[in-house]
Amino acid sequence: MELFDAVLNRRSCRKFLARPIREEDISRILEAASWAPSPANNQPWEFIVVRSPHLRERILAAAESCRKRLSERSGWKWIDRYSLEFLKEVPVLIAVSGIPEKSGADLFLEEGAGLGYQQACAAAIQNMLLAAHDLGLGTLWFSLFEKKDLREILGIGADRDPIALVCLGVPSGPPMKTPRKSPGEKTRYL
Amino acid sequence: MELFDAVLNRRSCRKFLARPIREEDISRILEAASWAPSPANNQPWEFIVVRSPHLRERILAAAESCRKRLSERSGWKWIDRYSLEFLKEVPVLIAVSGIPEKSGADLFLEEGAGLGYQQACAAAIQNMLLAAHDLGLGTLWFSLFEKKDLREILGIGADRDPIALVCLGVPSGPPMKTPRKSPGEKTRYL
Repeated sequence: MELFDAVLNRRSCRKFLARPIREEDISRILEAASWAPSPANNQPWEFIVVRSPHLRERILAAAESCRKRLSERSGWKWIDRYSLEFLKEVPVLIAVSGIPEKSGADLFLEEGAGLGYQQACAAAIQNMLLAAHDLGLGTLWFSLFEKKDLREILGIGADRDPIALVCLGVPSGPPMKTPRKSPGEKTRYL
Repeated sequence: MELFDAVLNRRSCRKFLARPIREEDISRILEAASWAPSPANNQPWEFIVVRSPHLRERILAAAESCRKRLSERSGWKWIDRYSLEFLKEVPVLIAVSGIPEKSGADLFLEEGAGLGYQQACAAAIQNMLLAAHDLGLGTLWFSLFEKKDLREILGIGADRDPIALVCLGVPSGPPMKTPRKSPGEKTRYL
Protein backbone atom coordinates (compact mmCIF):
# COMPACT_ATOMS: atom_id res chain seq x y z
CA MET A 1 0.00 0.00 0.00
CA GLU A 2 1.23 3.48 -0.80
CA LEU A 3 2.33 5.52 2.22
CA PHE A 4 -0.16 8.32 1.57
CA ASP A 5 -3.02 5.85 1.09
CA ALA A 6 -2.24 4.37 4.48
CA VAL A 7 -1.90 7.74 6.20
CA LEU A 8 -5.07 9.24 4.72
CA ASN A 9 -7.33 6.19 4.95
CA ARG A 10 -6.39 4.58 8.26
CA ARG A 11 -9.22 4.99 10.75
CA SER A 12 -9.96 3.76 14.23
CA CYS A 13 -11.73 0.40 14.25
CA ARG A 14 -14.22 -0.48 16.98
CA LYS A 15 -15.76 -3.65 15.54
CA PHE A 16 -13.63 -6.71 15.15
CA LEU A 17 -14.09 -10.32 14.12
CA ALA A 18 -12.98 -12.82 16.75
CA ARG A 19 -10.67 -14.38 14.11
CA PRO A 20 -7.06 -14.82 15.32
CA ILE A 21 -4.23 -12.77 13.88
CA ARG A 22 -1.29 -14.39 12.13
CA GLU A 23 1.95 -14.47 14.07
CA GLU A 24 3.83 -12.97 11.14
CA ASP A 25 1.46 -10.00 10.99
CA ILE A 26 2.05 -9.28 14.67
CA SER A 27 5.81 -9.49 14.11
CA ARG A 28 5.61 -7.15 11.15
CA ILE A 29 3.62 -4.61 13.18
CA LEU A 30 6.15 -4.73 16.02
CA GLU A 31 8.96 -4.35 13.51
CA ALA A 32 7.27 -1.19 12.19
CA ALA A 33 7.02 0.12 15.76
CA SER A 34 10.72 -0.45 16.36
CA TRP A 35 11.71 1.85 13.49
CA ALA A 36 10.13 4.94 15.03
CA PRO A 37 12.50 7.75 15.96
CA SER A 38 13.34 8.37 19.62
CA PRO A 39 15.52 10.74 21.67
CA ALA A 40 19.14 9.71 21.07
CA ASN A 41 17.76 6.51 19.47
CA ASN A 42 17.05 5.23 22.99
CA GLN A 43 14.08 3.14 21.82
CA PRO A 44 12.19 3.76 25.07
CA TRP A 45 9.42 1.24 24.42
CA GLU A 46 8.34 -2.27 25.32
CA PHE A 47 5.48 -4.38 24.04
CA ILE A 48 3.23 -7.00 25.55
CA VAL A 49 1.13 -9.00 23.10
CA VAL A 50 -1.97 -10.06 25.02
CA ARG A 51 -4.01 -12.92 23.57
CA SER A 52 -5.01 -14.69 26.79
CA PRO A 53 -8.83 -14.57 27.05
CA HIS A 54 -8.56 -14.37 30.83
CA LEU A 55 -6.30 -11.31 30.73
CA ARG A 56 -8.43 -9.66 28.08
CA GLU A 57 -11.46 -10.12 30.32
CA ARG A 58 -9.65 -8.51 33.21
CA ILE A 59 -8.66 -5.59 30.98
CA LEU A 60 -12.30 -5.18 29.91
CA ALA A 61 -13.40 -5.12 33.55
CA ALA A 62 -10.74 -2.52 34.39
CA ALA A 63 -11.77 -0.40 31.40
CA GLU A 64 -15.41 -0.56 32.51
CA SER A 65 -14.52 0.63 36.01
CA CYS A 66 -12.33 3.35 34.55
CA ARG A 67 -15.13 4.52 32.26
CA LYS A 68 -17.48 4.74 35.23
CA ARG A 69 -15.03 6.80 37.28
CA LEU A 70 -14.17 9.11 34.38
CA SER A 71 -17.86 9.65 33.71
CA GLU A 72 -18.43 10.67 37.34
CA ARG A 73 -15.37 12.91 37.45
CA SER A 74 -15.87 14.61 34.10
CA GLY A 75 -19.63 14.88 33.90
CA TRP A 76 -19.15 14.10 30.17
CA LYS A 77 -22.20 12.14 29.11
CA TRP A 78 -20.61 10.67 25.98
CA ILE A 79 -18.32 8.58 28.15
CA ASP A 80 -21.28 6.47 29.33
CA ARG A 81 -22.32 5.85 25.75
CA TYR A 82 -18.80 4.87 24.69
CA SER A 83 -19.18 1.15 24.09
CA LEU A 84 -16.41 -1.16 25.22
CA GLU A 85 -17.96 -4.18 23.48
CA PHE A 86 -15.06 -4.35 21.05
CA LEU A 87 -12.81 -5.48 23.90
CA LYS A 88 -14.83 -8.70 24.00
CA GLU A 89 -14.17 -9.54 20.36
CA VAL A 90 -10.75 -8.16 19.56
CA PRO A 91 -8.30 -11.09 19.50
CA VAL A 92 -5.10 -9.18 20.26
CA LEU A 93 -4.19 -6.28 22.51
CA ILE A 94 -0.67 -4.91 22.31
CA ALA A 95 0.29 -2.97 25.41
CA VAL A 96 2.93 -0.33 24.71
CA SER A 97 4.92 0.76 27.75
CA GLY A 98 7.40 3.60 27.87
CA ILE A 99 10.71 3.60 29.72
CA PRO A 100 10.91 7.02 31.38
CA GLU A 101 14.65 6.81 32.13
CA LYS A 102 15.24 6.45 28.40
CA SER A 103 14.21 9.98 27.54
CA GLY A 104 16.96 12.12 26.08
CA ALA A 105 18.40 15.50 26.97
CA ASP A 106 14.80 16.63 27.46
CA LEU A 107 15.13 15.15 30.98
CA PHE A 108 16.89 18.38 31.87
CA LEU A 109 14.56 20.93 30.30
CA GLU A 110 12.83 23.53 32.46
CA GLU A 111 9.29 22.81 31.24
CA GLY A 112 7.88 19.48 30.17
CA ALA A 113 11.04 17.65 31.19
CA GLY A 114 11.42 13.96 30.55
CA LEU A 115 8.41 13.34 28.35
CA GLY A 116 10.38 12.51 25.22
CA TYR A 117 9.89 8.81 25.84
CA GLN A 118 6.10 9.22 25.66
CA GLN A 119 6.33 10.99 22.34
CA ALA A 120 8.62 8.29 20.98
CA CYS A 121 6.13 5.62 22.11
CA ALA A 122 3.36 7.54 20.38
CA ALA A 123 5.39 7.62 17.15
CA ALA A 124 5.94 3.86 17.48
CA ILE A 125 2.20 3.36 17.98
CA GLN A 126 1.42 5.42 14.88
CA ASN A 127 3.79 3.17 12.90
CA MET A 128 1.88 0.16 14.29
CA LEU A 129 -1.50 1.55 13.23
CA LEU A 130 -0.24 2.28 9.73
CA ALA A 131 1.44 -1.11 9.39
CA ALA A 132 -1.72 -2.90 10.54
CA HIS A 133 -3.78 -0.91 8.04
CA ASP A 134 -1.35 -1.92 5.31
CA LEU A 135 -1.89 -5.56 6.30
CA GLY A 136 -5.68 -5.18 6.11
CA LEU A 137 -6.11 -5.17 9.88
CA GLY A 138 -8.03 -2.73 12.07
CA THR A 139 -6.67 -1.00 15.16
CA LEU A 140 -7.77 1.22 17.98
CA TRP A 141 -5.41 3.35 20.06
CA PHE A 142 -7.00 2.71 23.43
CA SER A 143 -6.14 4.52 26.66
CA LEU A 144 -9.27 4.29 28.80
CA PHE A 145 -7.54 2.56 31.71
CA GLU A 146 -5.80 3.49 34.94
CA LYS A 147 -2.11 2.72 34.63
CA LYS A 148 -2.07 0.98 38.02
CA ASP A 149 -4.69 -1.52 36.78
CA LEU A 150 -2.70 -2.34 33.65
CA ARG A 151 0.48 -2.67 35.70
CA GLU A 152 -1.19 -5.22 37.93
CA ILE A 153 -2.95 -7.21 35.21
CA LEU A 154 0.05 -7.42 32.87
CA GLY A 155 2.89 -7.42 35.41
CA ILE A 156 4.36 -4.09 34.28
CA GLY A 157 7.00 -2.76 36.69
CA ALA A 158 6.94 0.63 38.39
CA ASP A 159 9.84 1.71 36.16
CA ARG A 160 7.63 1.38 33.08
CA ASP A 161 4.81 3.68 31.97
CA PRO A 162 1.83 1.96 30.31
CA ILE A 163 1.03 4.36 27.47
CA ALA A 164 -1.67 2.64 25.45
CA LEU A 165 -3.28 -0.60 24.37
CA VAL A 166 -3.36 -1.14 20.64
CA CYS A 167 -6.46 -3.21 19.85
CA LEU A 168 -5.70 -5.33 16.78
CA GLY A 169 -8.02 -7.48 14.74
CA VAL A 170 -9.82 -8.10 11.48
CA PRO A 171 -12.41 -5.33 11.06
CA SER A 172 -15.99 -6.62 10.91
CA GLY A 173 -17.03 -3.80 8.60
CA PRO A 174 -15.94 -0.48 7.15
CA PRO A 175 -14.68 2.07 9.71
CA MET A 176 -16.44 5.28 10.61
CA LYS A 177 -14.95 7.94 8.34
CA THR A 178 -14.33 10.71 10.85
CA PRO A 179 -13.45 14.00 9.17
CA ARG A 180 -10.57 16.37 9.86
CA LYS A 181 -10.20 20.12 9.85
CA SER A 182 -8.23 21.31 6.85
CA PRO A 183 -4.58 21.93 7.71
CA GLY A 184 -5.07 25.54 6.57
CA GLU A 185 -7.23 26.20 9.63
CA LYS A 186 -4.44 25.05 11.89
CA THR A 187 -1.38 26.56 10.23
CA ARG A 188 0.41 29.90 10.32
CA TYR A 189 3.27 30.82 7.98
CA LEU A 190 6.20 32.90 9.23
CA MET B 1 6.45 4.64 -1.90
CA GLU B 2 5.24 1.54 -0.09
CA LEU B 3 4.22 2.09 3.53
CA PHE B 4 6.72 -0.44 4.88
CA ASP B 5 9.56 1.02 2.80
CA ALA B 6 8.83 4.42 4.32
CA VAL B 7 8.56 3.11 7.88
CA LEU B 8 11.72 0.98 7.73
CA ASN B 9 13.94 3.36 5.80
CA ARG B 10 13.08 6.79 7.17
CA ARG B 11 15.96 8.14 9.20
CA SER B 12 16.75 11.40 10.93
CA CYS B 13 18.49 13.87 8.64
CA ARG B 14 21.05 16.33 9.98
CA LYS B 15 22.53 17.68 6.75
CA PHE B 16 20.36 19.70 4.43
CA LEU B 17 20.77 21.65 1.23
CA ALA B 18 19.69 25.28 1.48
CA ARG B 19 17.31 24.65 -1.45
CA PRO B 20 13.74 25.85 -0.79
CA ILE B 21 10.88 23.38 -0.39
CA ARG B 22 7.89 23.41 -2.72
CA GLU B 23 4.69 24.82 -1.27
CA GLU B 24 2.76 21.74 -2.37
CA ASP B 25 5.16 19.43 -0.52
CA ILE B 26 4.66 21.40 2.69
CA SER B 27 0.87 21.21 2.23
CA ARG B 28 1.04 17.48 1.61
CA ILE B 29 3.09 16.97 4.78
CA LEU B 30 0.61 19.00 6.85
CA GLU B 31 -2.25 17.03 5.32
CA ALA B 32 -0.56 13.82 6.44
CA ALA B 33 -0.23 15.26 9.95
CA SER B 34 -3.90 16.11 10.10
CA TRP B 35 -4.93 12.48 9.56
CA ALA B 36 -3.30 11.25 12.75
CA PRO B 37 -5.62 9.82 15.38
CA SER B 38 -6.38 11.85 18.52
CA PRO B 39 -8.49 11.50 21.67
CA ALA B 40 -12.14 11.89 20.62
CA ASN B 41 -10.83 13.15 17.25
CA ASN B 42 -10.05 16.47 18.95
CA GLN B 43 -7.13 17.19 16.61
CA PRO B 44 -5.15 18.92 19.38
CA TRP B 45 -2.41 20.30 17.15
CA GLU B 46 -1.35 23.49 15.40
CA PHE B 47 1.46 24.15 12.97
CA ILE B 48 3.73 27.08 12.27
CA VAL B 49 5.75 26.89 9.07
CA VAL B 50 8.89 28.94 9.69
CA ARG B 51 10.88 30.04 6.66
CA SER B 52 11.94 33.52 7.81
CA PRO B 53 15.75 33.57 8.01
CA HIS B 54 15.57 35.99 10.93
CA LEU B 55 13.33 33.69 12.97
CA ARG B 56 15.42 30.65 12.09
CA GLU B 57 18.50 32.48 13.36
CA ARG B 58 16.75 33.26 16.63
CA ILE B 59 15.74 29.61 16.98
CA LEU B 60 19.36 28.56 16.38
CA ALA B 61 20.54 30.97 19.08
CA ALA B 62 17.91 29.64 21.51
CA ALA B 63 18.90 26.05 20.72
CA GLU B 64 22.57 26.88 21.35
CA SER B 65 21.75 28.39 24.75
CA CYS B 66 19.57 25.41 25.56
CA ARG B 67 22.30 22.96 24.60
CA LYS B 68 24.74 24.79 26.88
CA ARG B 69 22.34 24.68 29.85
CA LEU B 70 21.44 21.03 29.28
CA SER B 71 25.12 20.14 29.08
CA GLU B 72 25.78 21.85 32.42
CA ARG B 73 22.74 20.29 34.09
CA SER B 74 23.18 16.78 32.76
CA GLY B 75 26.94 16.41 32.70
CA TRP B 76 26.39 14.46 29.46
CA LYS B 77 29.39 15.18 27.25
CA TRP B 78 27.70 14.14 24.01
CA ILE B 79 25.45 17.17 24.24
CA ASP B 80 28.41 19.51 23.62
CA ARG B 81 29.37 17.52 20.55
CA TYR B 82 25.81 17.58 19.18
CA SER B 83 26.16 19.90 16.22
CA LEU B 84 23.40 22.41 15.55
CA GLU B 85 24.89 23.41 12.20
CA PHE B 86 21.93 21.93 10.34
CA LEU B 87 19.74 24.71 11.73
CA LYS B 88 21.75 27.14 9.58
CA GLU B 89 21.00 25.30 6.35
CA VAL B 90 17.56 23.77 6.77
CA PRO B 91 15.08 25.91 4.79
CA VAL B 92 11.92 25.05 6.72
CA LEU B 93 11.08 24.43 10.35
CA ILE B 94 7.57 23.34 11.21
CA ALA B 95 6.69 24.00 14.83
CA VAL B 96 4.07 21.60 16.16
CA SER B 97 2.14 22.88 19.17
CA GLY B 98 -0.30 20.90 21.23
CA ILE B 99 -3.58 22.16 22.67
CA PRO B 100 -3.72 20.76 26.22
CA GLU B 101 -7.43 21.45 26.72
CA LYS B 102 -8.11 19.20 23.72
CA SER B 103 -7.06 16.01 25.45
CA GLY B 104 -9.83 13.48 25.89
CA ALA B 105 -11.23 11.61 28.87
CA ASP B 106 -7.60 11.07 29.91
CA LEU B 107 -7.88 14.53 31.50
CA PHE B 108 -9.60 12.77 34.39
CA LEU B 109 -7.28 9.82 34.90
CA GLU B 110 -5.48 9.34 38.21
CA GLU B 111 -1.97 9.02 36.74
CA GLY B 112 -0.61 10.75 33.67
CA ALA B 113 -3.77 12.79 33.25
CA GLY B 114 -4.19 15.10 30.30
CA LEU B 115 -1.22 14.05 28.20
CA GLY B 116 -3.26 12.55 25.37
CA TYR B 117 -2.79 15.71 23.32
CA GLN B 118 0.99 15.24 23.38
CA GLN B 119 0.71 11.70 22.14
CA ALA B 120 -1.63 12.79 19.36
CA CYS B 121 0.85 15.49 18.33
CA ALA B 122 3.61 12.89 18.29
CA ALA B 123 1.51 10.67 16.01
CA ALA B 124 0.94 13.67 13.73
CA ILE B 125 4.68 14.34 13.68
CA GLN B 126 5.40 10.72 12.77
CA ASN B 127 2.99 11.06 9.84
CA MET B 128 4.89 14.19 8.79
CA LEU B 129 8.26 12.43 8.88
CA LEU B 130 6.93 9.53 6.81
CA ALA B 131 5.21 11.82 4.31
CA ALA B 132 8.38 13.88 3.88
CA HIS B 133 10.41 10.72 3.33
CA ASP B 134 7.91 9.62 0.70
CA LEU B 135 8.44 12.99 -1.05
CA GLY B 136 12.23 12.54 -1.01
CA LEU B 137 12.74 15.06 1.76
CA GLY B 138 14.72 14.73 4.98
CA THR B 139 13.45 15.56 8.45
CA LEU B 140 14.64 15.82 12.01
CA TRP B 141 12.32 15.68 15.03
CA PHE B 142 13.99 18.42 17.06
CA SER B 143 13.22 19.28 20.67
CA LEU B 144 16.39 20.87 22.02
CA PHE B 145 14.70 24.11 23.05
CA GLU B 146 13.03 25.61 26.10
CA LYS B 147 9.33 26.03 25.42
CA LYS B 148 9.35 29.59 26.73
CA ASP B 149 11.92 30.57 24.08
CA LEU B 150 9.88 29.08 21.27
CA ARG B 151 6.72 30.72 22.62
CA GLU B 152 8.42 34.10 22.51
CA ILE B 153 10.11 33.72 19.12
CA LEU B 154 7.07 32.33 17.31
CA GLY B 155 4.27 34.05 19.25
CA ILE B 156 2.81 30.87 20.69
CA GLY B 157 0.22 31.52 23.42
CA ALA B 158 0.35 30.17 26.97
CA ASP B 159 -2.58 27.89 26.10
CA ARG B 160 -0.44 26.04 23.57
CA ASP B 161 2.37 23.59 24.25
CA PRO B 162 5.30 23.70 21.80
CA ILE B 163 6.06 19.99 21.32
CA ALA B 164 8.70 19.89 18.61
CA LEU B 165 10.26 21.52 15.59
CA VAL B 166 10.26 19.38 12.48
CA CYS B 167 13.32 20.36 10.42
CA LEU B 168 12.49 19.84 6.75
CA GLY B 169 14.73 20.04 3.73
CA VAL B 170 16.47 18.28 0.88
CA PRO B 171 19.07 15.93 2.39
CA SER B 172 22.62 16.76 1.34
CA GLY B 173 23.65 13.10 1.52
CA PRO B 174 22.55 9.68 2.72
CA PRO B 175 21.37 9.54 6.36
CA MET B 176 23.17 7.76 9.15
CA LYS B 177 21.65 4.29 9.31
CA THR B 178 21.12 3.96 13.03
CA PRO B 179 20.22 0.40 14.05
CA ARG B 180 17.37 -0.84 16.24
CA LYS B 181 17.04 -3.63 18.76
CA SER B 182 15.02 -6.51 17.40
CA PRO B 183 11.39 -6.37 18.53
CA GLY B 184 11.88 -9.80 20.12
CA GLU B 185 14.13 -8.23 22.76
CA LYS B 186 11.36 -5.83 23.71
CA THR B 187 8.28 -8.02 23.58
CA ARG B 188 6.51 -10.41 25.94
CA TYR B 189 3.62 -12.67 24.90
CA LEU B 190 0.75 -13.32 27.31
